[in-house]
Amino acid sequence: MSHQSIKEECLQANLELPKTGLVDLTFGNVSVADPKARVFAIKPSGVDYDKLRADDMVVLDYDGQVVEGELRPSSDTPTHRCLYRRFEGIRSVVHTHSRSAVAFAQAGRDLPCLGTTHCDYFHGAIPCTRTMTPEEVGGEYEWETAVVIAEAFESRGIDPLNVPAVLVRNHGPFAWGPSAAKAVETALALEIVADMAIKTLSIQPAADPAPQHLLDKHFFRKHGPGAYYGQS
Amino acid sequence: MSHQSIKEECLQANLELPKTGLVDLTFGNVSVADPKARVFAIKPSGVDYDKLRADDMVVLDYDGQVVEGELRPSSDTPTHRCLYRRFEGIRSVVHTHSRSAVAFAQAGRDLPCLGTTHCDYFHGAIPCTRTMTPEEVGGEYEWETAVVIAEAFESRGIDPLNVPAVLVRNHGPFAWGPSAAKAVETALALEIVADMAIKTLSIQPAADPAPQHLLDKHFFRKHGPGAYYGQS
Amino acid sequence: MSHQSIKEECLQANLELPKTGLVDLTFGNVSVADPKARVFAIKPSGVDYDKLRADDMVVLDYDGQVVEGELRPSSDTPTHRCLYRRFEGIRSVVHTHSRSAVAFAQAGRDLPCLGTTHCDYFHGAIPCTRTMTPEEVGGEYEWETAVVIAEAFESRGIDPLNVPAVLVRNHGPFAWGPSAAKAVETALALEIVADMAIKTLSIQPAADPAPQHLLDKHFFRKHGPGAYYGQS
Amino acid sequence: MSHQSIKEECLQANLELPKTGLVDLTFGNVSVADPKARVFAIKPSGVDYDKLRADDMVVLDYDGQVVEGELRPSSDTPTHRCLYRRFEGIRSVVHTHSRSAVAFAQAGRDLPCLGTTHCDYFHGAIPCTRTMTPEEVGGEYEWETAVVIAEAFESRGIDPLNVPAVLVRNHGPFAWGPSAAKAVETALALEIVADMAIKTLSIQPAADPAPQHLLDKHFFRKHGPGAYYGQS
Repeated sequence: MSHQSIKEECLQANLELPKTGLVDLTFGNVSVADPKARVFAIKPSGVDYDKLRADDMVVLDYDGQVVEGELRPSSDTPTHRCLYRRFEGIRSVVHTHSRSAVAFAQAGRDLPCLGTTHCDYFHGAIPCTRTMTPEEVGGEYEWETAVVIAEAFESRGIDPLNVPAVLVRNHGPFAWGPSAAKAVETALALEIVADMAIKTLSIQPAADPAPQHLLDKHFFRKHGPGAYYGQS
Repeated sequence: MSHQSIKEECLQANLELPKTGLVDLTFGNVSVADPKARVFAIKPSGVDYDKLRADDMVVLDYDGQVVEGELRPSSDTPTHRCLYRRFEGIRSVVHTHSRSAVAFAQAGRDLPCLGTTHCDYFHGAIPCTRTMTPEEVGGEYEWETAVVIAEAFESRGIDPLNVPAVLVRNHGPFAWGPSAAKAVETALALEIVADMAIKTLSIQPAADPAPQHLLDKHFFRKHGPGAYYGQS
Repeated sequence: MSHQSIKEECLQANLELPKTGLVDLTFGNVSVADPKARVFAIKPSGVDYDKLRADDMVVLDYDGQVVEGELRPSSDTPTHRCLYRRFEGIRSVVHTHSRSAVAFAQAGRDLPCLGTTHCDYFHGAIPCTRTMTPEEVGGEYEWETAVVIAEAFESRGIDPLNVPAVLVRNHGPFAWGPSAAKAVETALALEIVADMAIKTLSIQPAADPAPQHLLDKHFFRKHGPGAYYGQS
Repeated sequence: MSHQSIKEECLQANLELPKTGLVDLTFGNVSVADPKARVFAIKPSGVDYDKLRADDMVVLDYDGQVVEGELRPSSDTPTHRCLYRRFEGIRSVVHTHSRSAVAFAQAGRDLPCLGTTHCDYFHGAIPCTRTMTPEEVGGEYEWETAVVIAEAFESRGIDPLNVPAVLVRNHGPFAWGPSAAKAVETALALEIVADMAIKTLSIQPAADPAPQHLLDKHFFRKHGPGAYYGQS
């Protein structure tokens, strides 16, 4: 039972996820890593949320070997594993098919930063990945999904700690953070700003992004050494 | 009481239906067949959901004769009966007026496959039927509805087991499956992907369908001999 | 206590209204008439729903005199009174500001009949009234509102018993029926089909109305001597 | 405990706010002033709603000095303080990121007065402020936000008591009123009419505002010496 702590954190976040309204049917999963031990816990595949227990969580190492657990891990496990390897500093990954974020993924559009709600969580637009090739889809599909995610951040010079979410084209969102609770909160914030953006674009298709000085102000009001939000 | 099992399954699914949010007022019904016995159970017409009991379900044979039950069956009964005769391998049919699916039916548009949420349930676009003629509507209307549904699948070469739903033009959706629970789940998945599609088209009216290789990957990841989703 | 029955029916319907989701804040009211006695009961003005009692209902005669009740009746009372005088055969009137129906009223558009959900309740488009003149608004405004409603039906030859709802331009919907429960159900059906129509028009701005033969079939399947829906 | 009354009123309104559906995550705050004493109570920054107590409210004077309370006040405090100084006659200010109102703020559009639901609360369009300059954002940002709000009202000759809300560009709404309950109700009415406006514009992008005579009628039916709505 050496990894009980991340299994518990993983269970709680997977149970929290449907309560946020982000998850229809069973379209969602959360994983939680212990980066020093290079392992992570993830939800088993296709199990109903109301039956999940901490010991159902599957623990794998960063090479993909199961370390603890009897069940088959989520089919999206290789995506999570690759993200932990590529994005240093993240401790939890959340995947949903939340509807408004999916709309941008299906439209093949970045989610633009249109206002301060977005700025409070993401320092700029949420990138949408390129279409995956037949080779990528036909090969190690779930692993390649994360490779394409990492490519979107690297090719555009986006820091995944400042923009902690992505839209996988024709698929849906992934979000991440320093804890499962924060990653779930970020996935929820993503859906909220996607919903706001759809409404905004419906009344103003050419809406401009928030100006850079407003984006910087709001993001750094809450993040980094100059933050002055909250009680800490 | 020879058909108690399908009456119970039918009752449970009819009670489940309003909880999914798919049904406004009393716009919905589920039937469950016993294909070997060539009979099916269906909800009675215009009875409030909170008063339904298993013995209120009406059992008919595939020729339309009532085998068990005192109440008048749903006015849509001939549509269900015809579908059981035409689509071999289905065991339950669900009809709703769920709002986003109805929007596509009213728009006279196929519901395009825009992303993996759709691919996970349906191997391609959900067809919208042609307009029914005055003769079809003036004749055995509910039966003819299913004839037009079957025509949509046959004329386009779509396998109803791989695309287990349809949009009846200016009317609404029907979905089906190997059990009532699965047919209800499919009706819910249909509404979810219709909602996602409306949102997608609002921000990108010319959104492309998901590429064929992504569609194949996701559908066959969950269906058929190569499936690797879930615990089985 | 000679009008206790319509006061009770009126109270129950006014309490039911917020549960339908049709009413935001206190934007809604129901009245119930006793056409033989030429009186009707209506909600008092600006009283919270959770404090309403049957004896708070105000009973007025068709000439506008208060017959029973201590409170000031709803400011919309003259609209209800005029409708009872103009539309023979109705026993209850419901007014809401339900959001999707309001959208058509604000757009100055009739709500087109796009599918069978609409056909099941309304034999054709729901008319939107013309803009009221400064004289009408500056005079007996609430009474004139009903005069303009009646004009919309008479000038277009629409039978208010076959199309039991209207959209008052730049204002919102009124619905009516043979009982308060049926009038509330009709107000709910109106909002549902308005929501479906908004979604339909968003993906197909030129969507055609349902064909006349389909409209006739569905409406008369449920209404009139040839009806075959339900258990009666 | 000299300001217990406004702290209690402030707490109750902050607890009411999430129940209205106006607030996602912790995006919202309410303050309540005692204009004679020139002080106001406001929510502390970044504290979960379910842990708030009256003594957590922070009381500041109109010069920005904390008079009571241990916690750091909301980061939006200078906006509230400036509004109390500029808009004589208001006693409570509410800030939310309610989604439909945010859409207009992000679109940089005034919220037009399209119907009587709007007229009942606001005597004309809700103004959207101009974009704040880098100097304003880089300086006393939250204070300057209110300066830009006041400019929108003064430059257009709008009376903030007759139009008790504003949309801050690329940010979101503020609403105010004579009490916290009324300010929260106004914030809710704002979101409702924004939602109705989005739906209206989706089916009629060129929808005309409600005519002036209708606007005057509905606003003054509920406000000012000629009001005849409610029981008083």
